[in-house]
Amino acid sequence: MSIDAATATDNSAATALTEAEIFEAHQGGKLSIASTVPLSNKRDLSIAYTPGVAEVSRAIHKQPELARTLTWAERLVVVVSDGTAVLGLGNIGASASLPVMEGKSALFKSFGDLDSIPLVLNTSDVDEIVETLVRLRPSFGAVNLEDIAAPRCFELEEKLIDALDCPVMHDDQHGTAVVALAALTNAAKVTGRSLDSLKVVVSGAGAAGIAVAEILLAAGIPDVVLLDSRGVINSTRADLAADTSSKKADIAGRSNPRGVEGGPAEALAGADVFIGVSSSKLDEAHLALMNQDAIVFALSNPDPEVLPEVAAKYAAVVATGRSDFPNQINNVLAFPGIFRGALDAGARRITPAMKLAAANAIAELAAEDLAADYIVPSPLDPRVAPAVTAAVAAAVEAE
Amino acid sequence: MSIDAATATDNSAATALTEAEIFEAHQGGKLSIASTVPLSNKRDLSIAYTPGVAEVSRAIHKQPELARTLTWAERLVVVVSDGTAVLGLGNIGASASLPVMEGKSALFKSFGDLDSIPLVLNTSDVDEIVETLVRLRPSFGAVNLEDIAAPRCFELEEKLIDALDCPVMHDDQHGTAVVALAALTNAAKVTGRSLDSLKVVVSGAGAAGIAVAEILLAAGIPDVVLLDSRGVINSTRADLAADTSSKKADIAGRSNPRGVEGGPAEALAGADVFIGVSSSKLDEAHLALMNQDAIVFALSNPDPEVLPEVAAKYAAVVATGRSDFPNQINNVLAFPGIFRGALDAGARRITPAMKLAAANAIAELAAEDLAADYIVPSPLDPRVAPAVTAAVAAAVEAE
Repeated sequence: MSIDAATATDNSAATALTEAEIFEAHQGGKLSIASTVPLSNKRDLSIAYTPGVAEVSRAIHKQPELARTLTWAERLVVVVSDGTAVLGLGNIGASASLPVMEGKSALFKSFGDLDSIPLVLNTSDVDEIVETLVRLRPSFGAVNLEDIAAPRCFELEEKLIDALDCPVMHDDQHGTAVVALAALTNAAKVTGRSLDSLKVVVSGAGAAGIAVAEILLAAGIPDVVLLDSRGVINSTRADLAADTSSKKADIAGRSNPRGVEGGPAEALAGADVFIGVSSSKLDEAHLALMNQDAIVFALSNPDPEVLPEVAAKYAAVVATGRSDFPNQINNVLAFPGIFRGALDAGARRITPAMKLAAANAIAELAAEDLAADYIVPSPLDPRVAPAVTAAVAAAVEAE
Repeated sequence: MSIDAATATDNSAATALTEAEIFEAHQGGKLSIASTVPLSNKRDLSIAYTPGVAEVSRAIHKQPELARTLTWAERLVVVVSDGTAVLGLGNIGASASLPVMEGKSALFKSFGDLDSIPLVLNTSDVDEIVETLVRLRPSFGAVNLEDIAAPRCFELEEKLIDALDCPVMHDDQHGTAVVALAALTNAAKVTGRSLDSLKVVVSGAGAAGIAVAEILLAAGIPDVVLLDSRGVINSTRADLAADTSSKKADIAGRSNPRGVEGGPAEALAGADVFIGVSSSKLDEAHLALMNQDAIVFALSNPDPEVLPEVAAKYAAVVATGRSDFPNQINNVLAFPGIFRGALDAGARRITPAMKLAAANAIAELAAEDLAADYIVPSPLDPRVAPAVTAAVAAAVEAE
């Protein structure tokens, strides 16, 4: 999860959060189980437990596809983490990651009306995590990977997609990418450009950066240049030429069509769009090199790559991950509807077309009142999850 | 789960259950997740998700024991099955077992106010199940094993107890045993006997039979004779002498102090108590060999080893697993309070003393109105789980 829902300095009551209220809210955790059937008399017990339940078990044994409707599993999202890249806190371990995963499960319920449970693992071995989820496969219907460090997160997601016949998505990658594309679609409109004409710089080549670059390419934006801590990513860079199997080497071969070399200055000279998903700062001097009416998404949390008031000197549209500035790019706009749509449509995979459909649906919701300071809906806009659900389900039908 | 909650032929509405209503009740499964924190405005999100949750994750990282109070995990019971011995249906697999496990989780909530989730595994390899739960350890606080075939269930429970620092109990063994001991305690009172004087025959040497024998020995009843499909269990039997490492061989060395040999006739001649936990029938001719004022618990479901009206010709007290006869021996009297008491008291193990305390608490609740047809409380008696919880927690304190 690289994008914050809100920050401590701005909130609904307009007063700062206190440690006391945060810890009070977390007492006993944030999730609860309920029975959806009554259990108050012998007849209830006879229906929900023995002997009634035996009929249901027997039916599923004879006709396995009945498990889809007669258990909660096929619509249950497991939020899986090994605690290796938790928020901005790094590798703090499975147990310490659990409050985040509980929060994610709570959001799945509140925004997508999907049941969800956290499963945190005290192994960070990719094959062991895959093996564990394969063994548990009959218990759930979809996997949301969360807060798993790059580059292991890429390998884990790929192996899980191969091993499981159900939707699997690493939200730190694709949730971020979907919302960034939605925002960019509208920012391009606001500034009177077409998507395919944009020169885009993505700063950060971890989970979110690679996924953002991928979705921009999939959306038909050919001129995407990635930056990491060593500078511009291109095929001739020694470290990437040395390990051609890495995700970075792969994207190097498919991005940067102008063969840009160097650092932030070379990347940003003449660029239309900056998307920051790393914690590195953006120099004002480099910002000044961008084209007129630039678009700046400074998504690092809690400290954006550049503060909006500085970015606004050069940019026509500015977005951040924070709730105390306009244009908050927040994953919660995407993941509830993506999983809900995939499960509603019985999809076995979350495909690029489904992600593009989700981005489009989010963008369209803001299109009516489009403005430089309103390029995405609010994370609390109740129209979002249903719209994304419908768009994703329609994309499944179309495929 | 070898003991039924109720049967189709008797229930609160006094009409038979229909397939339609059973399947209707199971649509979408029987469990639901809820958020225990509000998520309706930005301030709510800031507290439950980012940035607030980061404070909680950071605190747990620094002080791991805070996970006990700041997540749901330490009080979460996972109901684990591989689907190899589901009700009377046998090895029907993980997916088909899930409706039973969902029901169990619903009962944990309704009777013990404990959150619980089902985890069903498509492996029945003991070491793989142990390994899976060890990896998931930060996700939960206790393990209820369910519907796992003997003799693997013994090995699995032992290995899990060694591998996990949290309460682990195979309910088909110990839940059954606890309630059977509670019932026997009161049946002895009703017939004016002392527990330690009883000659007991346990028919069935699977998960439940062995556990019943163990708890009777632990309760100070020395004269326990087990029967399996080959007859009386004793140390000289060729199959048991050949494999001295088995659970049956172990119990053979600690039971049957009179060295009884033969079959049901030899076992029942002069016995005071018959406890049936197998599906084999009890001949009326053998029943006639028991002592006067015999005690007969015919616990197989849905078909008891002997029908109560036949047993009543020879026995002063008769119990079954069914809700349509008096004295229903049902695990739900035990497991919610045992786990709740263990978790309330911070116990790392479920010990024999805790099981005896649970049996005693159940027996005491029926003691006021004790009668031949009322030796255990109703499964729906709301006093039961709190009483068992308190007794088990007190036993933890005492140890």
